[in-house]
Amino acid sequence: MTEERPPVAIIMGSQSDWETMKNAADTLDVLGVGYEARIVSAHRTPDRLVAFAKGARDEGFQVIIAGAGGAAHLPGMAAAMTPLPVFGVPVQSKALSGQDSLLSIVQMPAGIPVGTLAIGKAGAVNAALLAAAVLALHDEDLAERLDEWRARQSAAVAEYPLDEQP
Amino acid sequence: MTEERPPVAIIMGSQSDWETMKNAADTLDVLGVGYEARIVSAHRTPDRLVAFAKGARDEGFQVIIAGAGGAAHLPGMAAAMTPLPVFGVPVQSKALSGQDSLLSIVQMPAGIPVGTLAIGKAGAVNAALLAAAVLALHDEDLAERLDEWRARQSAAVAEYPLDEQP
Amino acid sequence: MTEERPPVAIIMGSQSDWETMKNAADTLDVLGVGYEARIVSAHRTPDRLVAFAKGARDEGFQVIIAGAGGAAHLPGMAAAMTPLPVFGVPVQSKALSGQDSLLSIVQMPAGIPVGTLAIGKAGAVNAALLAAAVLALHDEDLAERLDEWRARQSAAVAEYPLDEQP
Amino acid sequence: MTEERPPVAIIMGSQSDWETMKNAADTLDVLGVGYEARIVSAHRTPDRLVAFAKGARDEGFQVIIAGAGGAAHLPGMAAAMTPLPVFGVPVQSKALSGQDSLLSIVQMPAGIPVGTLAIGKAGAVNAALLAAAVLALHDEDLAERLDEWRARQSAAVAEYPLDEQP
Amino acid sequence: MTEERPPVAIIMGSQSDWETMKNAADTLDVLGVGYEARIVSAHRTPDRLVAFAKGARDEGFQVIIAGAGGAAHLPGMAAAMTPLPVFGVPVQSKALSGQDSLLSIVQMPAGIPVGTLAIGKAGAVNAALLAAAVLALHDEDLAERLDEWRARQSAAVAEYPLDEQP
Amino acid sequence: MTEERPPVAIIMGSQSDWETMKNAADTLDVLGVGYEARIVSAHRTPDRLVAFAKGARDEGFQVIIAGAGGAAHLPGMAAAMTPLPVFGVPVQSKALSGQDSLLSIVQMPAGIPVGTLAIGKAGAVNAALLAAAVLALHDEDLAERLDEWRARQSAAVAEYPLDEQP
Amino acid sequence: MTEERPPVAIIMGSQSDWETMKNAADTLDVLGVGYEARIVSAHRTPDRLVAFAKGARDEGFQVIIAGAGGAAHLPGMAAAMTPLPVFGVPVQSKALSGQDSLLSIVQMPAGIPVGTLAIGKAGAVNAALLAAAVLALHDEDLAERLDEWRARQSAAVAEYPLDEQP
Amino acid sequence: MTEERPPVAIIMGSQSDWETMKNAADTLDVLGVGYEARIVSAHRTPDRLVAFAKGARDEGFQVIIAGAGGAAHLPGMAAAMTPLPVFGVPVQSKALSGQDSLLSIVQMPAGIPVGTLAIGKAGAVNAALLAAAVLALHDEDLAERLDEWRARQSAAVAEYPLDEQP
Repeated sequence: MTEERPPVAIIMGSQSDWETMKNAADTLDVLGVGYEARIVSAHRTPDRLVAFAKGARDEGFQVIIAGAGGAAHLPGMAAAMTPLPVFGVPVQSKALSGQDSLLSIVQMPAGIPVGTLAIGKAGAVNAALLAAAVLALHDEDLAERLDEWRARQSAAVAEYPLDEQP
Repeated sequence: MTEERPPVAIIMGSQSDWETMKNAADTLDVLGVGYEARIVSAHRTPDRLVAFAKGARDEGFQVIIAGAGGAAHLPGMAAAMTPLPVFGVPVQSKALSGQDSLLSIVQMPAGIPVGTLAIGKAGAVNAALLAAAVLALHDEDLAERLDEWRARQSAAVAEYPLDEQP
Repeated sequence: MTEERPPVAIIMGSQSDWETMKNAADTLDVLGVGYEARIVSAHRTPDRLVAFAKGARDEGFQVIIAGAGGAAHLPGMAAAMTPLPVFGVPVQSKALSGQDSLLSIVQMPAGIPVGTLAIGKAGAVNAALLAAAVLALHDEDLAERLDEWRARQSAAVAEYPLDEQP
Repeated sequence: MTEERPPVAIIMGSQSDWETMKNAADTLDVLGVGYEARIVSAHRTPDRLVAFAKGARDEGFQVIIAGAGGAAHLPGMAAAMTPLPVFGVPVQSKALSGQDSLLSIVQMPAGIPVGTLAIGKAGAVNAALLAAAVLALHDEDLAERLDEWRARQSAAVAEYPLDEQP
Repeated sequence: MTEERPPVAIIMGSQSDWETMKNAADTLDVLGVGYEARIVSAHRTPDRLVAFAKGARDEGFQVIIAGAGGAAHLPGMAAAMTPLPVFGVPVQSKALSGQDSLLSIVQMPAGIPVGTLAIGKAGAVNAALLAAAVLALHDEDLAERLDEWRARQSAAVAEYPLDEQP
Repeated sequence: MTEERPPVAIIMGSQSDWETMKNAADTLDVLGVGYEARIVSAHRTPDRLVAFAKGARDEGFQVIIAGAGGAAHLPGMAAAMTPLPVFGVPVQSKALSGQDSLLSIVQMPAGIPVGTLAIGKAGAVNAALLAAAVLALHDEDLAERLDEWRARQSAAVAEYPLDEQP
Repeated sequence: MTEERPPVAIIMGSQSDWETMKNAADTLDVLGVGYEARIVSAHRTPDRLVAFAKGARDEGFQVIIAGAGGAAHLPGMAAAMTPLPVFGVPVQSKALSGQDSLLSIVQMPAGIPVGTLAIGKAGAVNAALLAAAVLALHDEDLAERLDEWRARQSAAVAEYPLDEQP
Repeated sequence: MTEERPPVAIIMGSQSDWETMKNAADTLDVLGVGYEARIVSAHRTPDRLVAFAKGARDEGFQVIIAGAGGAAHLPGMAAAMTPLPVFGVPVQSKALSGQDSLLSIVQMPAGIPVGTLAIGKAGAVNAALLAAAVLALHDEDLAERLDEWRARQSAAVAEYPLDEQP
């Protein structure tokens, strides 16, 4: 297994998904986890999808984050062609607010798993956190950074609503 | 374009989908339209899917009927790799009664169409009728058989409920 | 069969649906496929619907694209009165975001098929592409144009999100 | 306006809907309201629908009860072709439990109303009661029978659950 | 039965529902049907509801149009206390877009019917048209006005989308 | 305030709801909380509802548990006519599995609260537990019994699935 | 039981929920019921949740109002660790408009009840009213204030829509 | 980090969830991955949940699979108290078929991720496969076994439906 690539690949179905998926990238940046972001459309560039998914492990990727909206086939199809863990982010769609994206990603048949996160931005952030948690199993420095991130997150929760300080 | 194959390919994600998709086959039988039924799992046999979809036109297929359930990616992924018209049948799923199947098939992004039929058996019958309607555009005999089928269907509707004959 | 008419009829339930259905027309324009767009309200002009649907084949139409919203009966009622393939576009409705349109169009009973596309603009584009795919079965020039359109679409997908060029 | 017909027409999309719609008929029987039950499929017998709906007022019908399931177009299309009040009964469908039937019937656009009742048997009973309430506006005997029916219904509600008598 | 009141009562749960229900009033105005619009909150003014509903027939009302949103109990509770036909209008709610209003109104148990119209403005217009259709059964002038209204409505449907005139 | 009545009233829309609501009664029995169970149909016995709800506080009831299904108006209408806390139990309905019951009960407008529990049996049990928690605020014996019930419940949760004992 | 605390605790998952939950606080202010508002995130500050919920009764709280959105675990987890009555407010979420919040709060298993109010602002107001109704069972002054509040609410409902005064 | 524990913990909310979660255990057995299955009810045994989740990493677990139904708080609350990757399985619930379970698990706020699988048995199998994929990143033997499992799965897909062999 070569190590040419950063550990995380962030793939998405179209440029417009980047607005959502950028939150995964930003979170990985904060945690000091390398990633590469690519547009891979399951429907418009199926060859690119096949090449990417089949080669992902050999290229050195360890975790794949895949975001797509509507009839969102990217996460599941990537999972069908790689043994790496795939985490799916349902992008909020226009008419159905991501309900179609969510069901298209999460309801995978037995045999090909996609670990699915929440619809939209929160899901993208959490896909990054989950990828980091996976990588942290064998990276003590990252584990420590993740622990600190979580501790800071907890500490940042105020005790009282803004105008309700006692 | 060789004519080795019958005009219609019926593909489905698993053996269990055949209970639904058999209704498409039976309808094509009645209409005298040739077909071939294959199991092509987008998730468990992605290579088979790629080979099938990319080769479908050259093999002589003219219309593809694709049935799948849950996170149903088969119809859309086939449509991504063939210029032939693809008609999708949402197979009724266990937990969500095919609502996931329907949204996963019908909500395709602009660029790759799947003509989607109703959930379950009715959808399978109608996929066959729609395929026949497409083929009948350039097959006058089939057009006539289809007209007759429709006429018989209309004639078979009773005027009154069984126990309400005047 | 006279050839007075272009191959595709685009019908819609009201003037307000044109904002959506225009995307079908524009797509057919790009592909060089002739069409005629008409307002045919199943509810407010049922006579016009009957006349149109019953006469569509004889007038020379080959494919019907029908868009409607809410309790969207136009596609299914047209399909009930013509043997031509009918493709339905669920227009996004105000209160229910097109969920009513989708179910009213796609859940046709066995016997009368409507090939249903996605809710809204994507569905209108795809209805045009599906109509073109049907016509291309016997029009090699169109088949070539459609292949080129699909190739251009694939080529237009950037490798990386805008601000993530390596 | 001739009076050849009973005041209420019960129409339904298929023989299988009779199991539901029979409850409307039975309720009208109890109330002493005349009716005629017919199978009129919007999709499989559109000519019958047009003939029925356009002629309903002249034949002497005063209220139409229409039941259908799935992409249920019968009530709305009947309402499009008659000025008589139309009451729609969403028949419980297999995959979607009548959610498709309900939305297909109730979400009519401004201009063509269908007074919609509950999904299934309760809706059929209530369509009959609503038809009776309409007819009772100008039929004092029926108004009295309806009052009595309602009074009996109220009186039949036990004070306590069966095994909780004080 | 005294005739102190106009034939139609339009009741609604709150002042804010008037924006929707005004469309019923406007439609009745156009058709020349008298009405009275009142705010009757099932929850905040239950006594007013009881008084109104129990007295509606004796006051001379013939049809009740009731609009409400959310857990919309007004139409069903009015129907529980009057033998007059009640037509319900689900007002579009904020969080659930009127899905709660629709189910709360339409899913009445067998015994107490509410003829339910579409969510929002279209439903309010149609409640008025349905009320007029009921009244027109015994008012030939109104029947004629309603026929003319429907004819004008049909005539007003353009043949072609605005920018697609042939 | 007289104390003729037990502290809890369990009301339900029909005899058939007792199958669900009996679970509330059984739970109160176990906790040693007195109750009275009555059938009060908002739609079929509105007078009984008014009498019950208006008199509940004076009769000595302290908490009302109300169960109903479909367009479930009983809990909200009771709450409209009593200042006592009302807890609503959505009974599972046939076609929509209690989704209609849930929305009809929980989506009350600001001003009239109904504390809503889960659909079906679990909701009935929990309505009883919530009523007990309210009463326990001023009944130390009950508070102790409730604490013991909760402790027993916790203790009854096995450590391992039945066939996975280590 | 010490009485250091006001009777009502309003807890919420994040600062952003305060916009909704402030309506509970404002309503308690109007009714003269003391409360304390705190941010307690089930997910980001689980220790704070455990400490709060386990100590709530001993601190003197009598009723807990808990608001949260999305996968809203705060109300149910608080209820798991306190015998006090817990009322849950589903905060309207972005993608799913609070449908996720509602189901996450209301569908508690038998054994741990959360009395759930409507999605959003109305639910927050009603949680306060329900808390007040509970406290009023043993606080005659509050009972009187609540009665007056309800009477004023009823009196504030206008008889006619603004522009429909007779 | 001690290695007292197997790498995977399977936790579930109740004994009844084992019917679903057993499929995760069986899949791990086939893949030769060690696991421990425990019942941990977020609601009925919150202390057990806190102890388990806080101690999971130190005990040597590497991945947590958590299954629950209805208002399913177990996966999210476990994720709130451990840095380990948590994969959630929505158990199919009675009234809402697991739609409540799914939304309660997947819609986690940014900060605390749960990788969610499909509703029911398929989700349990896939949670095991995803856990194995994570562990295989640093276990070449397991990676090989997983590759073989996937290859066998692909090979097991028949080419044709049972009665359609050419």
